[in-house]
Amino acid sequence: MSLNSFGHLFRVTTWGESHGPALGATVDGCPPGVTINEAMIQQWLDKRKPGQNKYTTQRREADQVKILSGVFEGKTTGTPVQLMIENTDQRSKDYSDIMDKFRPGHADITYWQKYGIRDYRGGGRSSARETAARVAAGGLAREALKLLAPSLKITGFMCQMGPHKINRDQFDLSQIDQNPFWTPDPQAAQDWATYLDALRKSGSSVGAVIEVIASGVPAGLGAPIYAKLDTDLAAAMMSINAVKAVEIGDGMAAAELTGEANADEISMGPDGPIYSSNHAGGILGGISTGQDVVVRFAVKPTSSILTTRKTITKSGENTEIITKGRHDPCVGIRAVPVGEAMMACVLLDHLLLHQGQVGANQGKIGK
Amino acid sequence: MSLNSFGHLFRVTTWGESHGPALGATVDGCPPGVTINEAMIQQWLDKRKPGQNKYTTQRREADQVKILSGVFEGKTTGTPVQLMIENTDQRSKDYSDIMDKFRPGHADITYWQKYGIRDYRGGGRSSARETAARVAAGGLAREALKLLAPSLKITGFMCQMGPHKINRDQFDLSQIDQNPFWTPDPQAAQDWATYLDALRKSGSSVGAVIEVIASGVPAGLGAPIYAKLDTDLAAAMMSINAVKAVEIGDGMAAAELTGEANADEISMGPDGPIYSSNHAGGILGGISTGQDVVVRFAVKPTSSILTTRKTITKSGENTEIITKGRHDPCVGIRAVPVGEAMMACVLLDHLLLHQGQVGANQGKIGK
Amino acid sequence: MSLNSFGHLFRVTTWGESHGPALGATVDGCPPGVTINEAMIQQWLDKRKPGQNKYTTQRREADQVKILSGVFEGKTTGTPVQLMIENTDQRSKDYSDIMDKFRPGHADITYWQKYGIRDYRGGGRSSARETAARVAAGGLAREALKLLAPSLKITGFMCQMGPHKINRDQFDLSQIDQNPFWTPDPQAAQDWATYLDALRKSGSSVGAVIEVIASGVPAGLGAPIYAKLDTDLAAAMMSINAVKAVEIGDGMAAAELTGEANADEISMGPDGPIYSSNHAGGILGGISTGQDVVVRFAVKPTSSILTTRKTITKSGENTEIITKGRHDPCVGIRAVPVGEAMMACVLLDHLLLHQGQVGANQGKIGK
Amino acid sequence: MSLNSFGHLFRVTTWGESHGPALGATVDGCPPGVTINEAMIQQWLDKRKPGQNKYTTQRREADQVKILSGVFEGKTTGTPVQLMIENTDQRSKDYSDIMDKFRPGHADITYWQKYGIRDYRGGGRSSARETAARVAAGGLAREALKLLAPSLKITGFMCQMGPHKINRDQFDLSQIDQNPFWTPDPQAAQDWATYLDALRKSGSSVGAVIEVIASGVPAGLGAPIYAKLDTDLAAAMMSINAVKAVEIGDGMAAAELTGEANADEISMGPDGPIYSSNHAGGILGGISTGQDVVVRFAVKPTSSILTTRKTITKSGENTEIITKGRHDPCVGIRAVPVGEAMMACVLLDHLLLHQGQVGANQGKIGK
Repeated sequence: MSLNSFGHLFRVTTWGESHGPALGATVDGCPPGVTINEAMIQQWLDKRKPGQNKYTTQRREADQVKILSGVFEGKTTGTPVQLMIENTDQRSKDYSDIMDKFRPGHADITYWQKYGIRDYRGGGRSSARETAARVAAGGLAREALKLLAPSLKITGFMCQMGPHKINRDQFDLSQIDQNPFWTPDPQAAQDWATYLDALRKSGSSVGAVIEVIASGVPAGLGAPIYAKLDTDLAAAMMSINAVKAVEIGDGMAAAELTGEANADEISMGPDGPIYSSNHAGGILGGISTGQDVVVRFAVKPTSSILTTRKTITKSGENTEIITKGRHDPCVGIRAVPVGEAMMACVLLDHLLLHQGQVGANQGKIGK
Repeated sequence: MSLNSFGHLFRVTTWGESHGPALGATVDGCPPGVTINEAMIQQWLDKRKPGQNKYTTQRREADQVKILSGVFEGKTTGTPVQLMIENTDQRSKDYSDIMDKFRPGHADITYWQKYGIRDYRGGGRSSARETAARVAAGGLAREALKLLAPSLKITGFMCQMGPHKINRDQFDLSQIDQNPFWTPDPQAAQDWATYLDALRKSGSSVGAVIEVIASGVPAGLGAPIYAKLDTDLAAAMMSINAVKAVEIGDGMAAAELTGEANADEISMGPDGPIYSSNHAGGILGGISTGQDVVVRFAVKPTSSILTTRKTITKSGENTEIITKGRHDPCVGIRAVPVGEAMMACVLLDHLLLHQGQVGANQGKIGK
Repeated sequence: MSLNSFGHLFRVTTWGESHGPALGATVDGCPPGVTINEAMIQQWLDKRKPGQNKYTTQRREADQVKILSGVFEGKTTGTPVQLMIENTDQRSKDYSDIMDKFRPGHADITYWQKYGIRDYRGGGRSSARETAARVAAGGLAREALKLLAPSLKITGFMCQMGPHKINRDQFDLSQIDQNPFWTPDPQAAQDWATYLDALRKSGSSVGAVIEVIASGVPAGLGAPIYAKLDTDLAAAMMSINAVKAVEIGDGMAAAELTGEANADEISMGPDGPIYSSNHAGGILGGISTGQDVVVRFAVKPTSSILTTRKTITKSGENTEIITKGRHDPCVGIRAVPVGEAMMACVLLDHLLLHQGQVGANQGKIGK
Repeated sequence: MSLNSFGHLFRVTTWGESHGPALGATVDGCPPGVTINEAMIQQWLDKRKPGQNKYTTQRREADQVKILSGVFEGKTTGTPVQLMIENTDQRSKDYSDIMDKFRPGHADITYWQKYGIRDYRGGGRSSARETAARVAAGGLAREALKLLAPSLKITGFMCQMGPHKINRDQFDLSQIDQNPFWTPDPQAAQDWATYLDALRKSGSSVGAVIEVIASGVPAGLGAPIYAKLDTDLAAAMMSINAVKAVEIGDGMAAAELTGEANADEISMGPDGPIYSSNHAGGILGGISTGQDVVVRFAVKPTSSILTTRKTITKSGENTEIITKGRHDPCVGIRAVPVGEAMMACVLLDHLLLHQGQVGANQGKIGK
């Protein structure tokens, strides 16, 4: 019952604080024989890394991963893989102006209420830096998936910034890597740039919605009743800093549909069932159908803003706070690779679980 | 790693199928000394029970709970509590017309793909009857909460049916028990009655949104990083049949806010922090603030409808299906007590976890 | 973290008290497609059943198992299997003379100290009746093993009663079912009968040692570091009532050996490695070698004896106690099928775990 | 279900190989507010450290621990504590002569059979170096215990080397730190020195028995049925490299006793129950009585010896092997601090579990 762990068989425990010497992920249950090296993982960390453009925090972190265990001669051995990232930019700031105040909308106050200890250096354990460890673990999961489910592909993107949604008619996945917002809508990329620039200069911040799609997922992944694929995805995404909602398939909009409208009709194709639509987001009864698995999550705006807000101190006095420093005007941007990493971890976990639980007993459709 | 269990310390394992001899909940980790009897649990089952009005399935189930273990002389002993509900109406239907076909939007096909075994009797394990076991466990959790957190109160209601939302200006919690939809908006109750009646007669179905609020929750509940209170609530709600999205506080709408709009400002009250608003839904950094904990979830329309839909058979032939029988036109109605039960279980679990983890070390605010 | 559960993937939660309405096992994670019915499980319960001869307690329990879930048309479905045994002989005794006293060597006092609740009816949850649920679960595990590892065979027997050990030169496995002590040494069976008869008449009790051997275990089962096969077997056996020690292979005697004497030398046989001896008990580094897995455990004498012992009452007064009633003079006898059941559960669990963890990556020996 | 983790609430995951860059322990669930620094942990690692005298391996490892997370301003924060030990002496040996051969009695062969990957550098993950991580975690557990149960004291010692047992009449705990064998019997220390010196020179090895006693353990720790205190201790000790048996209290000898001889009679003392003896080893029904908790475990001789043994190669050819290098003639010596560490971890875990599970409901004895 590790509180800092997730996964059933592919089990990731993250550790470390924003401003401690290092952070990382202890990954237990990775299958043996997976080809892996630090560069393979580094590519995903580089995607999440701060300071890459003016839309993300200007903190400079190399986010260089080291593999400390579990790999021998370039392959995983089946023993725990320790992925460590040293913090290099952790001493550059003076926190004296906020160390006794609680930022509204920040975990400062609840960590204090729970633990009676407050690590004020950049949020300590509640910092979004923890997600670097997730991305590292996700990099390992991706390589394991290549071995076990070669046609599986994971794609994350931003589909809404503040009130501005992408135009689904201008959806082009090849555009995702062409803009700083990881969005498939090139027009949105332009509009958001203008919008966010103004917001950043005013010291404000804004929320976002991220979508992650996995294609090539085998049918049959997921374990009713309380380890359903959608249950585990909901937990994985909700556990990311600042996430306030998770949708599968049609999500909240499913409430508005009638049974006829919601039914993804089925016909028989050459390689198995074909669906007329994907309202379900690729999951029925908690188990994958073989369609694209579609997850969206909403990220709230960061609470670290330049506008003065009312708050209290640890000793219970009313006061005000502004949060200077190097913050993301839209933390949702850097949540894209994090969402992808969580998707990779959850799918690998359920793939392993499916192997262990079922053996050769899967139901076939067709003669 | 029970796949049919949830909870860390208050651990509920549900078992049983729609049409087997019985179903139930094995509850491990209930504290000793909780006063409990069958009637205390029965009241919540009666709320969820089918056949109570024309808006729910006409299946007749007594849903009578029996306590088989863990209680001695009217109090829990600290050992597992077995709550069993015998199925009494399980043999009345002929499933021959659907036993080889998959209902679009139903778990029929994925259970088959996963297990190679299909229990066609009313959905087997994927049936919403499983939620009766959750409600029973929730009834026990409520009594334990009375002992450990006497001021805690859980209230669930329906806030949207199909496209029709309640008017938050006509919000009156005392109305919830006065209508068949568990809604706090009496006008909505009238409108929905007309709407659903028409839908029911046409053999269709529709989705809904349920909201569950817990007041009186102590600050400090929740365990970062992967056992956050919101993470566990998201998993708990997403695991309920037909749920496609979960929101905490502002939920999806948080994406549209700026940092200023989203900040719940803090001032010092006589008994602790007071917040100017509750965008966060009572949870910051995964830990309760002491404000109301607010969760919403969307329920899709049931796939069992009278309209013909295209589908395939187990042997891979294209065909059509209509689902006759006793179904809920809006399964969201009966999801209200289920959502309350999950809230009760998660909060009790985190209350126990908090005691075990922290001892006397909580941070105080004030001199 | 169910405290009343064991197993990683094949997860058994037992519930119920000695004198409640029923007890049972909730089995989660059984693979689908296992042929099972009540009679298949009943045969093992009958072996453990009390009152079969004068050497076991005269309590009359039918110990009739009912399958309440998880089985459809004679096969497991992959969903939880609920195995219930109703208590039929639970009201026949008056416990008033011991309800405020603690039996020396019994869990009476520690349950009271832990829970502040004492179920004095026959020991409540601490009664050895709990092991009936284990035997039922073990019966299901055996059938699953038949499917997944057809050549695997589990044999338990008594190898020591009080100070009297079997003669390993008269070891004949076919004798086990021919005597009331499940011993492979027919001479020991005769001697023990005389010995135990005298002990029983004097109202005393005595300890025993049980050995369980599994042959045909595939190499590679076990998961270092903390889910080693021997770790899990040690936990499984130590969790049985009254067990005070567990040995693997040479056990305590391994301490006396030199490295040369302890080395099981290896040579290549037609089907894989052959070992010159089995000091290791079939397990190296926590993983099965393919040799016989050999486990022994010591059972202490029951504390329920007719001799007066000094004790105290709940209110802290010094007093004396004798325990009348229907008790086993040597509880070790009925521990034989329990040990076998635990072996079956642990091996099935590790077989499933091995499938899930490794896929097709096992190391081959030979060209 | 981390396979490399142990503990319910105080959850330790060890990682790392004998000859990788580092190894360590990820400790989740340590209560906040525990005073800790590297020196406090280092003292226990120094006790286990190799190369301290001629009776332990001559490998030179500084075994210097670094705290990478979870501690702020000298106190634990409630977040994961990462304890890392860098390997400094990992490249000094040539393994080419054994890299294709399996050492009899070693995990070489089973790791290969399980994973298809063999880390031949000093045993990889199966090396006893893993226990350094346990000792580090145990050092942290000890400091947490000081806070939560100040009178608790853990003492480990060697009570048997090969066939030579200590004389319990010469038992003097103050002697333990006065000899290289951590034995309380000064005469045994002298005799063993001569015995082991001869053994070491001949290139042989021998087994041992370790005893660990915890005094000052509160009554009520332990969680029936499958998280009993003795179950968890048995698992913890059996998981240590080379351990083949675990005893609680009288252990195997309990089998020889009658009920009268085994009963620890109870009388009322000024501060609670007093027991006339401690056959039970401080545990009844899996729950601590308040007496000393007594555990013993047998360690087999190391398989790395200078005598030629028959074995096979990976390609299945018969061959012979001798293991040169820096090995412990009696690995039991260094198992003493490891056993103590496991005791500390298990007791802290159950102390936290007891707090979480029971709240204020413990039963009192007395008026």
